[in-house]
Amino acid sequence: MSKCILGIDIGTTNVKSVLFALDGSILIQESAEYPTFFPEAGWAEQDAEQWWEATVETISRITTNLQINKYEIAAIGVSSQAPTVLPLDIKGNPLRNALIWMDRRSEKECDFLRQKIGEVKIKEITGNRIDPYFAFPKLLWFRENEPHLLNRTHKILQCNGYVNYKLTGCFSIDKAHASLSQIYDKNKNRWSQELCQQLDISPKILPKIYECTDIIGTVTKKAAAITGLSQGIPVIAGTVDGSAAAIEAGVINSGEAVEMTGTSTVLLIASDKWKNNENLIAMYQGFGNHCLIFGAMSSTGACLKWFKDQFGNTEKKVAQKLNLNIFELMDLEASKVEAGAGNLLFLPYMMGERSPIWDSHARGMFIGLTLNTSRKQMIRAILEGTSFALYHNLKEVTKLGLKVNKLKAVGGGSNSDLWLKIKASMLNMPILVPETSTGAPFGDALLAGVGVKLYNNVRDIVRKSIKIKKVIM
Amino acid sequence: MSKCILGIDIGTTNVKSVLFALDGSILIQESAEYPTFFPEAGWAEQDAEQWWEATVETISRITTNLQINKYEIAAIGVSSQAPTVLPLDIKGNPLRNALIWMDRRSEKECDFLRQKIGEVKIKEITGNRIDPYFAFPKLLWFRENEPHLLNRTHKILQCNGYVNYKLTGCFSIDKAHASLSQIYDKNKNRWSQELCQQLDISPKILPKIYECTDIIGTVTKKAAAITGLSQGIPVIAGTVDGSAAAIEAGVINSGEAVEMTGTSTVLLIASDKWKNNENLIAMYQGFGNHCLIFGAMSSTGACLKWFKDQFGNTEKKVAQKLNLNIFELMDLEASKVEAGAGNLLFLPYMMGERSPIWDSHARGMFIGLTLNTSRKQMIRAILEGTSFALYHNLKEVTKLGLKVNKLKAVGGGSNSDLWLKIKASMLNMPILVPETSTGAPFGDALLAGVGVKLYNNVRDIVRKSIKIKKVIM
Repeated sequence: MSKCILGIDIGTTNVKSVLFALDGSILIQESAEYPTFFPEAGWAEQDAEQWWEATVETISRITTNLQINKYEIAAIGVSSQAPTVLPLDIKGNPLRNALIWMDRRSEKECDFLRQKIGEVKIKEITGNRIDPYFAFPKLLWFRENEPHLLNRTHKILQCNGYVNYKLTGCFSIDKAHASLSQIYDKNKNRWSQELCQQLDISPKILPKIYECTDIIGTVTKKAAAITGLSQGIPVIAGTVDGSAAAIEAGVINSGEAVEMTGTSTVLLIASDKWKNNENLIAMYQGFGNHCLIFGAMSSTGACLKWFKDQFGNTEKKVAQKLNLNIFELMDLEASKVEAGAGNLLFLPYMMGERSPIWDSHARGMFIGLTLNTSRKQMIRAILEGTSFALYHNLKEVTKLGLKVNKLKAVGGGSNSDLWLKIKASMLNMPILVPETSTGAPFGDALLAGVGVKLYNNVRDIVRKSIKIKKVIM
Repeated sequence: MSKCILGIDIGTTNVKSVLFALDGSILIQESAEYPTFFPEAGWAEQDAEQWWEATVETISRITTNLQINKYEIAAIGVSSQAPTVLPLDIKGNPLRNALIWMDRRSEKECDFLRQKIGEVKIKEITGNRIDPYFAFPKLLWFRENEPHLLNRTHKILQCNGYVNYKLTGCFSIDKAHASLSQIYDKNKNRWSQELCQQLDISPKILPKIYECTDIIGTVTKKAAAITGLSQGIPVIAGTVDGSAAAIEAGVINSGEAVEMTGTSTVLLIASDKWKNNENLIAMYQGFGNHCLIFGAMSSTGACLKWFKDQFGNTEKKVAQKLNLNIFELMDLEASKVEAGAGNLLFLPYMMGERSPIWDSHARGMFIGLTLNTSRKQMIRAILEGTSFALYHNLKEVTKLGLKVNKLKAVGGGSNSDLWLKIKASMLNMPILVPETSTGAPFGDALLAGVGVKLYNNVRDIVRKSIKIKKVIM
């Protein structure tokens, strides 16, 4: 029997479950989607039951197809989108939909925090700025607006915490998720007594904090029956999706960096110690005291997609006719234009912006239009404007004394050589694109392997498994 | 034999010659085009010979088709784009292409004027701000850069001045064109001795200034032979095209206003006396001391055309298929969007802007883009942004104490009811659209009729001839 490890990532749009052999090769991978609900402008919710249903669906497909005489699942690691606020009652049932990371309803609660506790104090305790992105302001909104539900709340969980609970029956939160809660004392590695007291939050509703590689429990009989997993498989606390993906991209030593561009762009930089900072976010990475500093842009690929949807009718037809990718066509068009796009600037804040400007009211702009401005220039301006946003975030990183001299790129955006070339030239550093990857589940599996002592060292296994397929200078 | 009058307008793109019966009805109309040359960015020139050739072509077609036993041409009036710098040698031959109104090469000479004479003094004498739009800075450029040609210059003429010269052999300039020269003393109704002396310009090269309705000469034997006109027909000094068009639109009494939207928009307001002002332009209208205050925007319809050319592929195909006008289709799309275009703003400065901000370096912008921004909203934003530019100019007018409570609209832009509705709502006044008209030539004919005493009163004949076809509230 060969041992293997199951990595599961509960992302924003889908769950991805991947079974890895111990050498890091993929045995089976499955995914399943769930919807996001936007009940009001700026609100974003998901149904926790749907996370679990999608997870069960993917695991079942894996266990059905697994040659059970040949392979034995030795550990499970779950990562997720973060942070989330999901209140459960005493029976472990969700009391409402989860407020997910993109939910911005708690602006008022942030103002309250600024007045009551103060930006400086919050940063001192939690290491991050006050923002609706974090879990604590969302929790305050919940208390303010749904006190009848808070009264019935037994635990507040994260996304992976809920899946872990369904697998093991144990309540938990990993250190990475905790560090994004804004009620976690990162200096003392525990829930902040000061914040709980001052804001009158019962620490009982907050789950126990684990190191990411800690085993929090094992697969229950009930979960085994539903999923086809064997009862008793150890489940680790897990980590945040970006952190797991960074591990997969080999972003571990101080100054190693990766940018992930899809709908939006996240820039992650490893640091061997915590760095408080003004305009980026800090979180624990998942092993030791390693940290990640990250900048999150709201819309990058989304701007390009917007242009395609509004103006790409011709490209769409050509792409269909020639069986080409429409974004490749748009790239080809933009490549015919000189750098600078004829002095046309594009600000990509089409959904407001997170780091480094943190302005929900910011909006997209085309600046510098002339009667000679062409579609091609507008496409290139979008590629350049979104790259400037990345540059803007990277400048914040260098303020922290972290030296970044090359950047890895993953996600759909890394398919565009032109986009990468613009970024390389703007950031003045080479950009390395790894072989197509599974993203977070690989990092989850690695952490789980460390948790059950199949691996001694995250670094070594990462170094072996990463293959760079192209370098853009 | 019935008397009739020939009105000729030498516009920016073509000459339009129209023969009118004395009651204002059109007998024959003809037009012919000529090109504009852009030898460098910001430069704009035309070949004076081509004005004359196009004029001859249109007059010949009219004289060929005229029932010569039935009609007798009693007078000719010529208006033109303004202002222009055209140097002629002693034989009346052009020494170079004319620098037309849109030529912006004389920024440096404007700076020189500001230093040497000063903005205040220039305004005191000429009634207008210093700007490359006017003729004087262009003349200084000519002296500075082509002194060998200035040495051979016998007269500097305007566009209609050249056609008048070809018709009559007489050099002239009308008071309206003179008032846009920036070397005319509007207080003393003569060339400014002070400016000529201080800038060392020989007054000899400047033609005699006439009232617009003054007869400057009669059709020569030579011109008669080429055009088919009878020798001896009186030719008046004429006026500026905008002024002639304003007369046709019935903009005569103080506060009467018209906006002409095509590629760009011009807003003209009548005033019974001269009004110096900061950000608009003042000129004599063509009869008595009546003045026109006008604001000129650089690109309005041009922005819409740009959008159509870059993004209107689908509309183009539908328009062809259904035999519809593409701008009507775009209007229909924009009409589906709420006022405010989803908070999307458009600045129409795609060729810089003239009044009221006078900034050649201004550029177009879309501000407030979100991922939900639609093509329809962008079209509406263009209609709204260009209407705001009109509003911006009208606000300057009210600063002068001129009360405008309704606005006439002519030109291609007046075909769009939606655009007019946006303007009416923004300016908070009704917009009146006259029956399709001939534009400037009607005003030219009226002035010529007054010149040869066929009419006593410009006002009366205008009032009789204007028919409003729709009013947009």
